[in-house]
Amino acid sequence: MPNPCRRTEEMTTERNLDMPDPQRNDFPLLADFTAALTSVAFGKWQERVDDYAHRAELAGECRRLADLAFRDRDAAAREHLHDILTVVYAYEFSQSAARNPDQDPQPILRDVTSVLENAVLDNEFRQVPEELLTGYPTGEKDYVRWLKALIQDHPASTHPMYAEHLTNAATVEDIRFLLAQETSLDPRFDDILAVMQFGATGAEKMEIAANYWDEMGNGEFADVHTTLFSQCLTSIGVDRGYIESNLLLAAKECGNISAGLALSRRHYLRAIGYYGVTEFLAPRRFRQLVTAWDRLGLPPEGKVYHDIHINVDAHHAAGWYKNVIGPVVERDPAAGREIALGTFVRLNTSAYYLDRVLEVCLKQPLPA
Amino acid sequence: MPNPCRRTEEMTTERNLDMPDPQRNDFPLLADFTAALTSVAFGKWQERVDDYAHRAELAGECRRLADLAFRDRDAAAREHLHDILTVVYAYEFSQSAARNPDQDPQPILRDVTSVLENAVLDNEFRQVPEELLTGYPTGEKDYVRWLKALIQDHPASTHPMYAEHLTNAATVEDIRFLLAQETSLDPRFDDILAVMQFGATGAEKMEIAANYWDEMGNGEFADVHTTLFSQCLTSIGVDRGYIESNLLLAAKECGNISAGLALSRRHYLRAIGYYGVTEFLAPRRFRQLVTAWDRLGLPPEGKVYHDIHINVDAHHAAGWYKNVIGPVVERDPAAGREIALGTFVRLNTSAYYLDRVLEVCLKQPLPA
Repeated sequence: MPNPCRRTEEMTTERNLDMPDPQRNDFPLLADFTAALTSVAFGKWQERVDDYAHRAELAGECRRLADLAFRDRDAAAREHLHDILTVVYAYEFSQSAARNPDQDPQPILRDVTSVLENAVLDNEFRQVPEELLTGYPTGEKDYVRWLKALIQDHPASTHPMYAEHLTNAATVEDIRFLLAQETSLDPRFDDILAVMQFGATGAEKMEIAANYWDEMGNGEFADVHTTLFSQCLTSIGVDRGYIESNLLLAAKECGNISAGLALSRRHYLRAIGYYGVTEFLAPRRFRQLVTAWDRLGLPPEGKVYHDIHINVDAHHAAGWYKNVIGPVVERDPAAGREIALGTFVRLNTSAYYLDRVLEVCLKQPLPA
Repeated sequence: MPNPCRRTEEMTTERNLDMPDPQRNDFPLLADFTAALTSVAFGKWQERVDDYAHRAELAGECRRLADLAFRDRDAAAREHLHDILTVVYAYEFSQSAARNPDQDPQPILRDVTSVLENAVLDNEFRQVPEELLTGYPTGEKDYVRWLKALIQDHPASTHPMYAEHLTNAATVEDIRFLLAQETSLDPRFDDILAVMQFGATGAEKMEIAANYWDEMGNGEFADVHTTLFSQCLTSIGVDRGYIESNLLLAAKECGNISAGLALSRRHYLRAIGYYGVTEFLAPRRFRQLVTAWDRLGLPPEGKVYHDIHINVDAHHAAGWYKNVIGPVVERDPAAGREIALGTFVRLNTSAYYLDRVLEVCLKQPLPA
C-alpha cells in the first residue's frame, strides 16, 4: 500500500528558474491567450470566441501540455502549465476584466482553465488512496473527530519547517523566503471566503460569512488581514521583485490549487475540507513563526498579521468544523468522502511545499 | 431626440403565460443544455465540452434565439431566452454544481451565457443615448451630485406604482403580486455583493463588504435579510407555486440583468452604477410599501424586512456614492460613463417593470 500520508507520485524536480524554457514555443496559441488576457486593450475576443476551430486547437494544446506535465512528469511543462494558471487566477482575483468591459474572454478562459485546472486537481485526487476516503463514521461529531485525527497524524501538521527550523534555526532570509512563498494564498483569502459562501444557506453560510468579515478587519481598514499581511512583507523587505525571483513551483501549485478549488464551485465540499486544514493548522504554524520573529528581533509591526491569526484562526477552525463540516456531513453522509479528499489534498500539497521550502533553507535535499 | 429617460425600443407585449410556445421545439440543443444543467446526475459534460462542432451549433442556436428576441422583437423568443438565463443564474447562485463535482459544465455554460447575456445587456445599453453619457463633471463630488440628480429626475424614482398606487389604493393581492416579482432580485442580494467586492481594494472594498455584512444581519441569523424576506413572503402566502404562475417577463428581465451585471465581472463599473440606484431608491419605495402594509393591517412580522431597509439603505446609499462611486470616478474619470450607463439601465428597466406591475394591478394598459 502506498504511503497514505504523502503524495505518491514520483516527484518532478524543481526547475532552475534561470534556465531558459525552449518548450514554451511549442504552445503558440496558449502564448497568444495569456498575452491577450494580460493586455489592457485586446479587442478581438469575440472573433476568437466565435472561431470554434481555433478553440478546438487551443484545447488540444492545453491537453498536450497537461499530458507532458502529468503523464510524462516533465518539470518544465508542469511549471509552464502553472504559470498559465497563475495568469488566469490573477485575472479572476482582480478587477482586470473591468478595464475592457465590452470584451468577453470568459468562453475561452473557461476552455483553457477547464483542461489545465482539471489536470492539476485530478493529479492530486488520484494520489489519495480510495481506502482512506471510505469507512468514515457518519455522525456529525464522530466524523469531525475522525477528520481532525487524520490531520493531526499527517506529517504536514508538525512539519519540521515550522516545528523545528523556524523555532530553532531559521535566519531572517529564511523567513523572507517563506513569506514570499505564502503570497500565493494569503493575499486573496477574503475573496476565497466570499466565493465559498456563495449559494450556501443557514449556519454554514453564517460561519463562512463571519470568517470573511474577520478577514475584513470587522470593517476597520487598518485591521484588514490583507493590509496586515502587506505590512508584514514590507517590514522585512519582501517586494514584488523578490517574490517573482524566488517563488517556487511548489508555491505556485499551492496557490493554483487553492484558487481552483474555490473558484470552480462544484468543488465546494472539497474546498471546505481543504480550507478547514488551513484554518486548523494556522495557529500552531503562526505561533512558531512569531517565535522565530521575536528570536531574530524583527520589526514588531510585521508580526501583527500572524499574531492575530493565532487566536482568531483557533476560533475559526472550531467554528468551521462545528458549523460547516459537521452539519454538511450530518445532512449528506456521502459528502464525507469529498470533504476528506479536499482535506488530504491540502495536507499533501502543504507537506510537499514545506519540504521544498525547507530544502532551500537547509541548502540540501531532504532525505528520501 | 428619443426620450432620454425611458427604454426607447418599441416594446414587445407580455406573452400570455398560459399560451403554449411552439417555438421552443426550434431550439433542441438549448433544450438539451437546460435539461442537463438541471439534472442531478448528467454525466456526459466532458463529451459535450470536447465536441467543438456541437458547441458551434449550440452557439448558433443561441444567436438565432437572440436575433428573434431583439432584432425581430418576438415576445415569445424573448421570454424563452430569459427562461434559459433564469435557469443558468439559478444554477450559478446555488450550490447545484456541488451535487456533481466531477462534471464540469462551465465551458458550455459560458458559451451559452455569453451569447444570451450579451444580447440582453446590449439591448439595454443601446437604448441609452450616448449624449447622456458624456459631458459629465469629473470631480468626485460634482459627479456624484450630477448622477443623483439624474436619478431624481427619472420617472423610476417617483413611479406611480409606489408613489400613488401603493400609498392609496393597492389591495392585498396587489402587494402579493408585487412581492412575487421582487423575488427575482432580493433573495440573492448578499451573494451579489459578495461577488461585486471581489478583487476590489481599499475603501471601495470596505463599503461593499459592510453592505454584505448588513445583509448577513451582522452575523445574527434571525436578522439575515434573506431570512426576513422569506418571512415577509410567508406572512402573506406568497409561495413558490404562486411565484411561478405570476412572474412577469419584466421581472425575469430585471432578475437576469441584475445577475448578469454582477456575475460577469467585466461589468463592474456598470454594476456599481446599477446597484447604487437600488440602494438609493429602496428607502422611499419601502416606506411606501410599509404605508400600504399598515393601511391594510397585514401581519407586522412581514414588514420587518422593508422596515429595516428604510434606514439601512439610506445609510448604504450614502456610503455607496461617497466611498465607491466617488473615488472610482476621481481615480479614473472615464469610469463615469460606465457608471452612468449602469445607472440608466437600472432606472429604465425598473420603470418598465413597474409599469407592467401597475398595469396588472389596474387591470388595464397604461396610457402610452
